[in-house]
Amino acid sequence: MKILLVGSGGVGAAFTAIAARRDFFELVVVADYDESRARAAVDALDDDRFVAARVDASSADDVAALCREHDVTHVMNAVDPRFVMSIFDGAFAAGADYLDMAMSLSTRHPEEPYAKVGKKLGDDQFAVADQWESAGRLALVGMGVEPGLSDVFARYAADHLFSEIRDLGTRDGANLAVHDEHGNEVFAPSFSIWTTIEECLNPPVVWEKARADEPDGGWFVTPPFSEPEVFDFPEGIGPVECVNVEHEEVLLMPRWVDAERVTFKYGLGEDFINVLKALHDVGLDSTTPVRVPSAGGPVEVSPRDVVAACLPDPATIGPRMTGKTCAGLWVTGIGKDGQERETYLYHVVDNEWAMQEYGHQCVVWQTAVNPVVALELLADGTWSGAGVLGPEAFDAVPFLELLTAYGSPWGQRDS
Amino acid sequence: MKILLVGSGGVGAAFTAIAARRDFFELVVVADYDESRARAAVDALDDDRFVAARVDASSADDVAALCREHDVTHVMNAVDPRFVMSIFDGAFAAGADYLDMAMSLSTRHPEEPYAKVGKKLGDDQFAVADQWESAGRLALVGMGVEPGLSDVFARYAADHLFSEIRDLGTRDGANLAVHDEHGNEVFAPSFSIWTTIEECLNPPVVWEKARADEPDGGWFVTPPFSEPEVFDFPEGIGPVECVNVEHEEVLLMPRWVDAERVTFKYGLGEDFINVLKALHDVGLDSTTPVRVPSAGGPVEVSPRDVVAACLPDPATIGPRMTGKTCAGLWVTGIGKDGQERETYLYHVVDNEWAMQEYGHQCVVWQTAVNPVVALELLADGTWSGAGVLGPEAFDAVPFLELLTAYGSPWGQRDS
Repeated sequence: MKILLVGSGGVGAAFTAIAARRDFFELVVVADYDESRARAAVDALDDDRFVAARVDASSADDVAALCREHDVTHVMNAVDPRFVMSIFDGAFAAGADYLDMAMSLSTRHPEEPYAKVGKKLGDDQFAVADQWESAGRLALVGMGVEPGLSDVFARYAADHLFSEIRDLGTRDGANLAVHDEHGNEVFAPSFSIWTTIEECLNPPVVWEKARADEPDGGWFVTPPFSEPEVFDFPEGIGPVECVNVEHEEVLLMPRWVDAERVTFKYGLGEDFINVLKALHDVGLDSTTPVRVPSAGGPVEVSPRDVVAACLPDPATIGPRMTGKTCAGLWVTGIGKDGQERETYLYHVVDNEWAMQEYGHQCVVWQTAVNPVVALELLADGTWSGAGVLGPEAFDAVPFLELLTAYGSPWGQRDS
Repeated sequence: MKILLVGSGGVGAAFTAIAARRDFFELVVVADYDESRARAAVDALDDDRFVAARVDASSADDVAALCREHDVTHVMNAVDPRFVMSIFDGAFAAGADYLDMAMSLSTRHPEEPYAKVGKKLGDDQFAVADQWESAGRLALVGMGVEPGLSDVFARYAADHLFSEIRDLGTRDGANLAVHDEHGNEVFAPSFSIWTTIEECLNPPVVWEKARADEPDGGWFVTPPFSEPEVFDFPEGIGPVECVNVEHEEVLLMPRWVDAERVTFKYGLGEDFINVLKALHDVGLDSTTPVRVPSAGGPVEVSPRDVVAACLPDPATIGPRMTGKTCAGLWVTGIGKDGQERETYLYHVVDNEWAMQEYGHQCVVWQTAVNPVVALELLADGTWSGAGVLGPEAFDAVPFLELLTAYGSPWGQRDS
């Protein structure tokens, strides 16, 4: 297996640190728009299976050329979702398989964005699924932690725990905190604020098998931050307020797993929701440039870029962060024994452990470990397939066993 | 009386519209950094007592030269408080009297900004009070609505309602709302967001005659948004959450009126406080430039300027605004009859009335009417004095009578 890793930011760099401990591949080409960043990730490893390169992720031709140059068999996309389609198309053109951790972007309905569904996450990728299938090529989409491990949990629940599923509810929460040099807690998101604004302010999507007003069911949108609920997260994290957020699980799970309702709720917490609402109220979430003074005269800048510039780089906050992050799937329905059942399948990572063991903060580490596991299953043939497939299209058991073998076990709570 | 009005923004333009209906002056030179804006204010009046000019408010020499050119007797400062000292010094140099609506800026204590007092609002002006007094010149400072009318109320309460005052608590609240073309309420502050951030995020100041830890009392600072209370505003505005904010009344009232405690609380409301806190958490209140991409390459911009650029100009929102604004002083203590007394002295302006009657929105109109009244009292000799004096240094009754004669009565609520 020869891998092209596109992107060596927080998640990409953690991917290389995790993969370097495994022996299922011959080569990882670590490519970034900023080649010095790719080189820094490679230099940190002291492993000659890793080489650095420059890539323009917005160019399918550039991605394809790099694949051909290195006889790449698998392209691993680790950049932000604006670049999904160019990397996906570049991999196909070069005859490589493809994995990502976020799918092609949605477009809101132009007139009624919170009432009608526009173009959905992943639609652009699924539109060409038959071409991938005919060519015998695999695009394994949404293969991070969420989407990714959450989808593996869905398949596991359907195959081994439930005879009938009502809810497939991805629930993500954490008790992470970042402190300044004086020990005061500061506002410092652990993930790209640009992407967080994008996913949290887009209309959230839910899936329902049937609804009073739509007997045939399907996907539905709601206003941002809808249906708040307090979810009690395990391993000492405790209760966190969660709200609907647009996320790939809702688009993936109903294609392969039978359920009555599929949702994604993110434990943003009241403070973070207030910040996002305030940014939106003032118009600071916008990417449309505004005119402002500068020392060299008036300039035009994107408010969202200014927000990002005011905050610390998420890749740098690990040493000042404490707490745990939890990704998981809450499932309700009828168990294999015919009784009512409610189970939360989850994966918790402690930041202290991730920093000590890998030198990468827990949120990016947890995202990166899952595609490494998936690639190892594809390398030894345990997983195989063709087309555009989500993680729930594959057997969950070997994945969960290998994740545990990586030193990062998952958990199950029945209530 | 010949007046130099420095600044023809929202408040300055409203000042000209109000003054134009009175006959106590011979001339108003309307001066602005942007001369076309001054000319627009003058052209709107059709009154040859008003002339437009250009002024650099940051230059005391420029202000003094303009005073001498027009034999100005009174300088009216209507620009933001960054320019107080240059205008104040320019008026003195030219032998003119001076009025403002906000005092020279504070500087927070460098090590313990929320526990120790730094340089206070107005300190730079009071430092030269004896020079003004010796020269027989008057600087009437803090003569808008708050500070201004609130200080007049303090003097009125001490002279006519109370024999002993416990609290002098300025309380400001409103039920203003701004709607977009579809009728949806939007976030659109009625006052400069730059100044609002400055006053709301500076350490609030309170005055106490004595305190357990400081028997001699004095001025004390607190963290932003401290001591929240719900105050019930009159004339249908109703209850609004108010918090401590740094404001001139707290620095002025104790110099002339005897009380146990002097505070200023601003009815920002929970939503607005959340927005200000969020801006502060993210660092968007900062004026230190950050580096961001732009079409022409990386540029450096002040985050606070970007916030201002995302919001509508407060001077333009009048036609889309509804509701009333209330300025007032809540007083507690022993009444003239020896009984416990609690009285709120207030002034309410309805935006619909201000727009219809004057074409200026209620918040800037309410600020501007008070210095016009004060100038009229100085012109006819009802008020006179020398030195750096607050509004509470003068008899309140003629002021309140003349304000009522302007068609804008004040109110009193005893509870």
